Amino acid sequence: MNSFNSLHYHLHTDLALEARDLVRGATGREISGVSEEQQTFPHCSVTIIKIMDENAEKVMGKPRGTYITIEAPELKFKSPDVQQSVADVLAQHLKNLLQLTGQETVLIIGLGNWQATPDALGPSVVQNTLITRHLFQHMPEAVENYQSVCALAPGVLGITGIETAEIIRGVVEKVQPNVIIAIDALAAANISRLGTTIQIGDSGITPGSGVSNKRAEISYQTMGVPVIAIGVPTVVNAALIAKTTLETYFAKFSQGKQHPVYIQETITDVFEPFHGSLIVTPREIDDLIQNAGRTINTGITMAIHQKVPQEELQALI
Amino acid sequence: MNSFNSLHYHLHTDLALEARDLVRGATGREISGVSEEQQTFPHCSVTIIKIMDENAEKVMGKPRGTYITIEAPELKFKSPDVQQSVADVLAQHLKNLLQLTGQETVLIIGLGNWQATPDALGPSVVQNTLITRHLFQHMPEAVENYQSVCALAPGVLGITGIETAEIIRGVVEKVQPNVIIAIDALAAANISRLGTTIQIGDSGITPGSGVSNKRAEISYQTMGVPVIAIGVPTVVNAALIAKTTLETYFAKFSQGKQHPVYIQETITDVFEPFHGSLIVTPREIDDLIQNAGRTINTGITMAIHQKVPQEELQALI
Amino acid sequence: MNSFNSLHYHLHTDLALEARDLVRGATGREISGVSEEQQTFPHCSVTIIKIMDENAEKVMGKPRGTYITIEAPELKFKSPDVQQSVADVLAQHLKNLLQLTGQETVLIIGLGNWQATPDALGPSVVQNTLITRHLFQHMPEAVENYQSVCALAPGVLGITGIETAEIIRGVVEKVQPNVIIAIDALAAANISRLGTTIQIGDSGITPGSGVSNKRAEISYQTMGVPVIAIGVPTVVNAALIAKTTLETYFAKFSQGKQHPVYIQETITDVFEPFHGSLIVTPREIDDLIQNAGRTINTGITMAIHQKVPQEELQALI
Amino acid sequence: MNSFNSLHYHLHTDLALEARDLVRGATGREISGVSEEQQTFPHCSVTIIKIMDENAEKVMGKPRGTYITIEAPELKFKSPDVQQSVADVLAQHLKNLLQLTGQETVLIIGLGNWQATPDALGPSVVQNTLITRHLFQHMPEAVENYQSVCALAPGVLGITGIETAEIIRGVVEKVQPNVIIAIDALAAANISRLGTTIQIGDSGITPGSGVSNKRAEISYQTMGVPVIAIGVPTVVNAALIAKTTLETYFAKFSQGKQHPVYIQETITDVFEPFHGSLIVTPREIDDLIQNAGRTINTGITMAIHQKVPQEELQALI
Repeated sequence: MNSFNSLHYHLHTDLALEARDLVRGATGREISGVSEEQQTFPHCSVTIIKIMDENAEKVMGKPRGTYITIEAPELKFKSPDVQQSVADVLAQHLKNLLQLTGQETVLIIGLGNWQATPDALGPSVVQNTLITRHLFQHMPEAVENYQSVCALAPGVLGITGIETAEIIRGVVEKVQPNVIIAIDALAAANISRLGTTIQIGDSGITPGSGVSNKRAEISYQTMGVPVIAIGVPTVVNAALIAKTTLETYFAKFSQGKQHPVYIQETITDVFEPFHGSLIVTPREIDDLIQNAGRTINTGITMAIHQKVPQEELQALI
Repeated sequence: MNSFNSLHYHLHTDLALEARDLVRGATGREISGVSEEQQTFPHCSVTIIKIMDENAEKVMGKPRGTYITIEAPELKFKSPDVQQSVADVLAQHLKNLLQLTGQETVLIIGLGNWQATPDALGPSVVQNTLITRHLFQHMPEAVENYQSVCALAPGVLGITGIETAEIIRGVVEKVQPNVIIAIDALAAANISRLGTTIQIGDSGITPGSGVSNKRAEISYQTMGVPVIAIGVPTVVNAALIAKTTLETYFAKFSQGKQHPVYIQETITDVFEPFHGSLIVTPREIDDLIQNAGRTINTGITMAIHQKVPQEELQALI
Repeated sequence: MNSFNSLHYHLHTDLALEARDLVRGATGREISGVSEEQQTFPHCSVTIIKIMDENAEKVMGKPRGTYITIEAPELKFKSPDVQQSVADVLAQHLKNLLQLTGQETVLIIGLGNWQATPDALGPSVVQNTLITRHLFQHMPEAVENYQSVCALAPGVLGITGIETAEIIRGVVEKVQPNVIIAIDALAAANISRLGTTIQIGDSGITPGSGVSNKRAEISYQTMGVPVIAIGVPTVVNAALIAKTTLETYFAKFSQGKQHPVYIQETITDVFEPFHGSLIVTPREIDDLIQNAGRTINTGITMAIHQKVPQEELQALI
Repeated sequence: MNSFNSLHYHLHTDLALEARDLVRGATGREISGVSEEQQTFPHCSVTIIKIMDENAEKVMGKPRGTYITIEAPELKFKSPDVQQSVADVLAQHLKNLLQLTGQETVLIIGLGNWQATPDALGPSVVQNTLITRHLFQHMPEAVENYQSVCALAPGVLGITGIETAEIIRGVVEKVQPNVIIAIDALAAANISRLGTTIQIGDSGITPGSGVSNKRAEISYQTMGVPVIAIGVPTVVNAALIAKTTLETYFAKFSQGKQHPVYIQETITDVFEPFHGSLIVTPREIDDLIQNAGRTINTGITMAIHQKVPQEELQALI
């Protein structure tokens, strides 16, 4: 996940669309070096933002490139029709970016940790991708008309001890793909984007970004082939929730709503749409459940079976 | 999970210890009808709160009874020694509450949803509990000295369509246990409690509490046998984070720190200890990942294999 | 799973269709008290076997009733079209058995253990079923036209210590459903049926069957409402593989093929269709992986970090 | 998993100890070029087999090298004491093979597929390994005294489309480890070895072996650094069960036990120790459960909610 591991405490969004709003919110006018285009489709709208010069890079906090954002609020509900419709729009934009002739090899990278639910989007996509590259040698007739596709879920730095970009670079040198598609779970600033926004970018991706770290970048510069990044926000940094809340309150305050009663109004404004279903939890929730569960199990077992020697019990828990 | 499903939007804690702090914070003095005792152990401290009359019930928002809270900040790190030490303290208090003679049947109930990670504590404990009841008939020699223990993970209302208490009552009438131990993931007000606090209570538990709903209660009144509840906070309601933040800021503000710059100071105060590892995410994060993953997979497949007929591809995804 | 836990070692099939073949194979003629009907559909064929009298019950080793077997070899490949087509046939037969008017409550029971992959079919269906019963009270407008459906995955005897039928009976008395649909993973005799055969029966089901155990039966007799059982074979008892192999060899032998060389021919005959993808493994494969993994991890860590004190390492593994 | 994917149908064991027994069984005498040593420990015995020349390689079907086999039948039961005791023996042999001075980097490779239970041993070990390499740069004080360890779970050919050895070679060139430890689930010939035998080898490993494929080998020859392989049998090829059974029967037969009644005796001889807990199932059991579950869910939903339009239902399932 992009901004998950950042050690510096910062209020970050992985979405160019949100970065634009943040900058505009502060300055109140168009951003120099940033262009923008809107498209509307039955179940989604698309915004194409281009960051075109160094100044725009700095202001937006994102590298130069094209950022295509698909907003599809209906993705919140599981509907095959909406999924197919949004997939069609995604496919169309990918086709334009990929420009495949049929002879290329595509390497799909699933970033993230398959055992931490909010971070498992990339590995989950890889697990279900239609893989063909290994069949071209052994069963070429089965893949006639198909493109050569391979995939890797390299894991995260905390699990591997190796920069993810280093792993990918090693594999790229062996496989020699023509293009990389990297899938990652993103952090958004706005909770309404969780699961409903898809960002496609052509400027690469930095796992654990926020911290500037050129070595960690997965991009044309570091890989030698085009990198298309596809991401979906699955989390909001808890601190951003705090910031949003304070700013909402501050806006009220500056309108003369200075009484603490507006605290409740602020919270209602921010969270009402989610019916209390948003939770704050540590990233390591799986470990937390396992540790707490083991402690409780041990305690219960010791308390209940008092006549059984402790060592015998410990061997059974 | 206790306060997860509440439809009313409310700022709730499942911990009696936090309820006491909230009440005290507002009134600034001891609470009538509430007694309190402190104990200290090598790796944890214990607070025993007794809610003794109707007035205390109302003020605290919890039914009459004893609430034993074990605070063990070191549980955050996975240490077998700390786990065993805390389990010993837990076992000691459970023994006092259970008062078993060796002849009783204990029914362990794992509340929550095994497929929603933050809500899976109860089912996870049940999955690993030492179960003996079925052996007393078929292999009595194997369970000599053991207590009769059985267990159930009944699921949650959204999955079963049946009030959890209704399921348990049905099973209790068949199994006729002498005591119930119910395990549940809790919601706390304070993020530092996630995974580090264990609450033991003798007044029962209401899944999806907050909403007053007598039918849903799992207690001596509804089950006819004592109910010991054991819980660990795994989530904080995202709105509570907002409220905590606003209150922290408001305190600064009332000290004359009125400039927006204190927004950042506030956020640092609240989140610093967690190094940005706290995330806000919907409860339905597993579904979100699955839906988003499927949409992206479809889009990628359509974009890459352009020469393959769409219907053939759709059958393969 | 039906015949998983049987303590007596026996060569068992949960499928009436296979039982018929076994009996016929031995006697070579029609079975008295057993009727049979065939239907053919685009992607599947259906055989309806009726066991009509006590003699037939004994010979077939199954209680009186109707057994509808859907055979759909294409289910082996993941094809939404085939799945929908088979689901339509299943739906049609279920409609006939259920005879719903719209006012009934249906209780769906997912038998099996959600943490043992080959045994997780029932819980997996329950996890994804459309549940409506709880909405009739709180959101009746959302479920207009819908039937009232609730569900339970009660677990298995080894996890709960309670006979599964006991749990269900308790819940049935509370919920008062008009009909029960019980889903279970089955054991087949023939490996080609794994995942490709669906059996629907109206005579109930006995978890851990094979052993005669009236208390454990989930049927009209024990529940007081009709019980429709739906099952899919996910495993073959390893001993049945041995038996099939020996019989195949014995048939060759009786044709004069007495040389050990026919051992290889026999194995090829039995396993060729599966390209070596069939494995023999203990039911407790998840536990096996966990235990072996922990032992190896400990060994590796001790071997690698030789300068770190053992106790410090043990706390980290 | 070593011999899982083999396309040629063959009766294979990944264990040198079993290969020796098979060869000896056929020839009845010591094998030239193969040495052997025995050790005994409280909870396990160790056999060290050395394959020393080309002839021995051919006869044994394994490359030259040392194969250390730890047999610990008690690993079947979950006992922390036994696990620690076996881990100690494993650690001692690993130390001898690794000969670390403290300055080396160790790369741990978890072979296999994390989403196919019987094949998940390698990824499961990687997920829980103590990883330190990334800390040497950022938090060197935290890893004083520790060895530099990194890890990768590269996936399997069917998921990645890339030869696993190719992926590892790419990563090795970037990380430049001094030694590789590769963990894999193995296939045994003898069912009693499932989960109870650990093999350590210094001659490398070939995922999907059996098929001779030099490119796929993970060894000193292909990686340029020593490769220690650690494996545990988790499956037996179903065909091997058939073969074992036939041979057992054939032995009886040659002693004059020619009647079919000895079929049952044979099966009892082979399977008795496992109490019917051994199952035959396809490797793709997870997919099987998912596909069958979806089909049944669709059928049930269609059958129950007859008044709801089909399209509305299909969008909900």
